[in-house]
Amino acid sequence: MEEPIISLVMASANPKKIEEVRQILPERIQIISLEEMEIYDDIPETGNTLEENALIKARFIHQSKKCNCFAEDSGLEVYSLRMEPGVYSARYAGLQKSSEDNINLLLKNLENEENRNARFRTVLALILDEKEYLFEGIIQGSISKSRSGLNGFGYDPVFVPDGSVETFAQLNPEQKNEISHRGIAVRKFIDFLKLYTG
Amino acid sequence: MEEPIISLVMASANPKKIEEVRQILPERIQIISLEEMEIYDDIPETGNTLEENALIKARFIHQSKKCNCFAEDSGLEVYSLRMEPGVYSARYAGLQKSSEDNINLLLKNLENEENRNARFRTVLALILDEKEYLFEGIIQGSISKSRSGLNGFGYDPVFVPDGSVETFAQLNPEQKNEISHRGIAVRKFIDFLKLYTG
Repeated sequence: MEEPIISLVMASANPKKIEEVRQILPERIQIISLEEMEIYDDIPETGNTLEENALIKARFIHQSKKCNCFAEDSGLEVYSLRMEPGVYSARYAGLQKSSEDNINLLLKNLENEENRNARFRTVLALILDEKEYLFEGIIQGSISKSRSGLNGFGYDPVFVPDGSVETFAQLNPEQKNEISHRGIAVRKFIDFLKLYTG
Repeated sequence: MEEPIISLVMASANPKKIEEVRQILPERIQIISLEEMEIYDDIPETGNTLEENALIKARFIHQSKKCNCFAEDSGLEVYSLRMEPGVYSARYAGLQKSSEDNINLLLKNLENEENRNARFRTVLALILDEKEYLFEGIIQGSISKSRSGLNGFGYDPVFVPDGSVETFAQLNPEQKNEISHRGIAVRKFIDFLKLYTG
């Protein structure tokens, strides 16, 4: 019996993220980019949570094109900072600031803090056959006192996953994908699609 | 150093659910019931997803009492029925119908279906220090062709968790709690509170 093919639009303008997800998905789950759909809108990420932002992006595409689609949002959450920067991770130090600035602000805010527990979290929102599904990936860790490593992006140089002595930025991409928040969420998403299509 | 005590209102009118959660929580996380808060409203569960219903209940309490609180919603999701009954699990056969009727309808709808994959899912919504958090518990399984067992409630007599030959209704409460969707969600919630309070 032929297995059915599922086509999904991925609501991301980031070609690296699309390529990363394409590489993990089985062949019969096909990703269509916003470019291929000729969608060039700048979708506003106005939610207060990762869940809301992922849903905002997926609903935007679904409403305009009536297609099955998904979107993701990710953030770093630090327990003693009441889970900030969270949904503001990419703009923690301000809208026009770099990852460099974001990390500096984070280290400053944790200067006298003993509780350096943190987690990276991804939420992936899927709209399939007019229903909404959320998939979450979490990796627990802590914030180091200074930067280490050159791989990855964002807060990777100061995030040490539990059970490791190295930061995310010291891992190679395959090692990171295997344990990362985004990797976990995407694998849950794939498992769901496999069971859904029988 | 004394560990701080967290008090949370649990937005549930079901004393059995409150007792179940109280038994799992460490002593310093204290549950206050709606009765103790003198809240007797019937909170409408009008959401299209478990996430929405859990949030509706938690937000209702938070808005009226300005307190930290949490709520949960659970459902059975069957893959070949496009994840129904889901949020309608308790009223699948109709508002005034029993679990007996719900199970009969489910077995009828799956009569000629080979793909009997299903999952139980719980979503717990927490509002803490003005922020919202979701905790999910999922257990994969399948729907049996007939009922077995007398424990539990709802769809337990026809839900066989993966890796088992018995239904949920054939397990004792401790065995079920250890692997169940609700048990998983509550343990994630506890782990979060422990890290949050340092």
